[in-house]
Amino acid sequence: MEELTVKIGVIGCAGIAKKYVRAMKLVPAIEIRALGSRSIKKAEDFAKEVDLEPSTKLYGNYKDVINDESIDAVYIPLPTSLHLEWVKEAARNHKHILLEKPIALTTHDLIEMLNLCKEYGVQLMDGTMWVHHGRTLEMKRYISSSESFGKIRRIHCSFSFFGNEDFMRNDIRVKPDLDSLGCLGDLGWYCIRAALWAMDFELPSYVVAQPGHKKNEAGVLINCGATLVWQSGCVATFDCGFDVELQQIFVVSGTKAVVRLDDFVIPNTEDSGAFELTSQGKFADNATRITKTCFKVVTKLKKPQEALMLEKFASIIQEIKKGTGKVDQHWIDAAKTTQLVVLAVAQSVEENGSRVSLVS
Amino acid sequence: MEELTVKIGVIGCAGIAKKYVRAMKLVPAIEIRALGSRSIKKAEDFAKEVDLEPSTKLYGNYKDVINDESIDAVYIPLPTSLHLEWVKEAARNHKHILLEKPIALTTHDLIEMLNLCKEYGVQLMDGTMWVHHGRTLEMKRYISSSESFGKIRRIHCSFSFFGNEDFMRNDIRVKPDLDSLGCLGDLGWYCIRAALWAMDFELPSYVVAQPGHKKNEAGVLINCGATLVWQSGCVATFDCGFDVELQQIFVVSGTKAVVRLDDFVIPNTEDSGAFELTSQGKFADNATRITKTCFKVVTKLKKPQEALMLEKFASIIQEIKKGTGKVDQHWIDAAKTTQLVVLAVAQSVEENGSRVSLVS
Repeated sequence: MEELTVKIGVIGCAGIAKKYVRAMKLVPAIEIRALGSRSIKKAEDFAKEVDLEPSTKLYGNYKDVINDESIDAVYIPLPTSLHLEWVKEAARNHKHILLEKPIALTTHDLIEMLNLCKEYGVQLMDGTMWVHHGRTLEMKRYISSSESFGKIRRIHCSFSFFGNEDFMRNDIRVKPDLDSLGCLGDLGWYCIRAALWAMDFELPSYVVAQPGHKKNEAGVLINCGATLVWQSGCVATFDCGFDVELQQIFVVSGTKAVVRLDDFVIPNTEDSGAFELTSQGKFADNATRITKTCFKVVTKLKKPQEALMLEKFASIIQEIKKGTGKVDQHWIDAAKTTQLVVLAVAQSVEENGSRVSLVS
Repeated sequence: MEELTVKIGVIGCAGIAKKYVRAMKLVPAIEIRALGSRSIKKAEDFAKEVDLEPSTKLYGNYKDVINDESIDAVYIPLPTSLHLEWVKEAARNHKHILLEKPIALTTHDLIEMLNLCKEYGVQLMDGTMWVHHGRTLEMKRYISSSESFGKIRRIHCSFSFFGNEDFMRNDIRVKPDLDSLGCLGDLGWYCIRAALWAMDFELPSYVVAQPGHKKNEAGVLINCGATLVWQSGCVATFDCGFDVELQQIFVVSGTKAVVRLDDFVIPNTEDSGAFELTSQGKFADNATRITKTCFKVVTKLKKPQEALMLEKFASIIQEIKKGTGKVDQHWIDAAKTTQLVVLAVAQSVEENGSRVSLVS
């Protein structure tokens, strides 16, 4: 079934690409067919560093990867400011696209990308790995039970890490010309995705940025937060920052139970993931102690979550190639709604906490 | 040293008073000298229920307790709408006061109470128990270390429980004429206190209520949240509700470490309390897993935290009685700042998320 193998071209040699290459090697359905960088030297160095097969084609630019007719899909880990250009190129050349988050810097760019992908029948998926973890599916099962979880009332996410001096000076995520959404586009993306995931990707009615955000000297967000409010009355809050010790807290609170984990984006270990579920909490003995039911759900993984994401991406493309399946709208909607909320929060930040509507 | 025993009068037979009576019995320095209720029958029933000493004087009203010259201090668990009246009476009769939270329903009432306590040299302490727990002191030690904790950047608190139908219909905390601050005055009090405690009781520059609050039919808050912003740039968020499964999350995030606990108000067990400290978090092996230092600090207690609070209260009064000490301003400031922030949040809720300044 060689013809069903999904041939991927990697565009750019970002640090994150190393993680992807390793994961692609764990997925039998995927072949890394080509790698393009701004110079052939950089491509060769990267290929050596990550030990690519000698058969992998190396290019000294991105365009040749996209024009390579043997390629089914591209992985784009470029700075967000370059996404529109290369997504356009890829879509027009009928390449499916695995795109690093955030997707876009403006709603205009987002819509243009999505329209092109639709026009050319191209699958778009963003690189949010944690939703592909087995425990995420398990969590969904718990929080979806109206009998045991009740209604979702509150969601809270904190995702941060402390960027050292080098990061704060040189990383693309603090550069206004590369990833101008800063910590919101990077860390906030995951928090917003988590909230949307919990709410089955229903858009919140509106968002309001929290006061007290911080920007670097170039005007890029390095710490911010927001509140999201849904029609149902559910409220989500999140905060994220490059100036706080690493934390990855995700809490979904229902009327009958609470689900909580402290490593939602990148699990503490690769081969398993856990979350805690508490319910039936009561103040016992005149409120001198708590009684509650508390248990930990552990999900073992045979492959890391990024490999599971790639497996999903490859399986959709295989079905399309076979003619037995089509573009999976779920992943396009997930990327779209996440990006729309990210941009709404960015707008609210700029407008000092204005209420930005998402549902007309 | 019988004359140094602190003689306390309990005003009202609220449910919470049972917890206090039990704790008072655990403190040798305290004698429950009197109990007053709206009828002598209620006082007698309560005395029987909680097994008060036969020597405890029982009164069919509150005033007689306060006029009892053998009494040093009163414990007031009455609905907040009655606080001003009885704090006034108590202060004017030179009784020290242990007062249930929230202290007051308006800034005017708060200031009047504090002025009277000052005028009559009376100690005021609010009934926030968790700050007297040994682990709270331990946590303070950790978060105060600029070397290992760094600067405090973020604080987050969630305190909620699911009020059943009876609670939502009959509890004083959902009644506009009794505790009109609802969940904000009850649960939010603890969250705000936690944030202030972490910030050494420095008032935030301003607060902004989160959108999406909920009120019952009588207009009393049953779910709300807010963001507090300090001069230093530290940002705290909290949420609280009577319509969410029990949770008591408290997280303090610094530039170098994170302290976290999930039972901050009422510990899971009475005889000990724990918190978790994580630091040195890093994305390891190309961000495929996390490395961090994580340990649990466990503090054993010989007495429940409410007894420790009463011990503190009694020891201040004993020093005053001996003439070797005076009113401890810390507890007055703690109550005052907490109440001011509660009221600022309430104002912001009413003004749809307006920015309410606390520092001029």
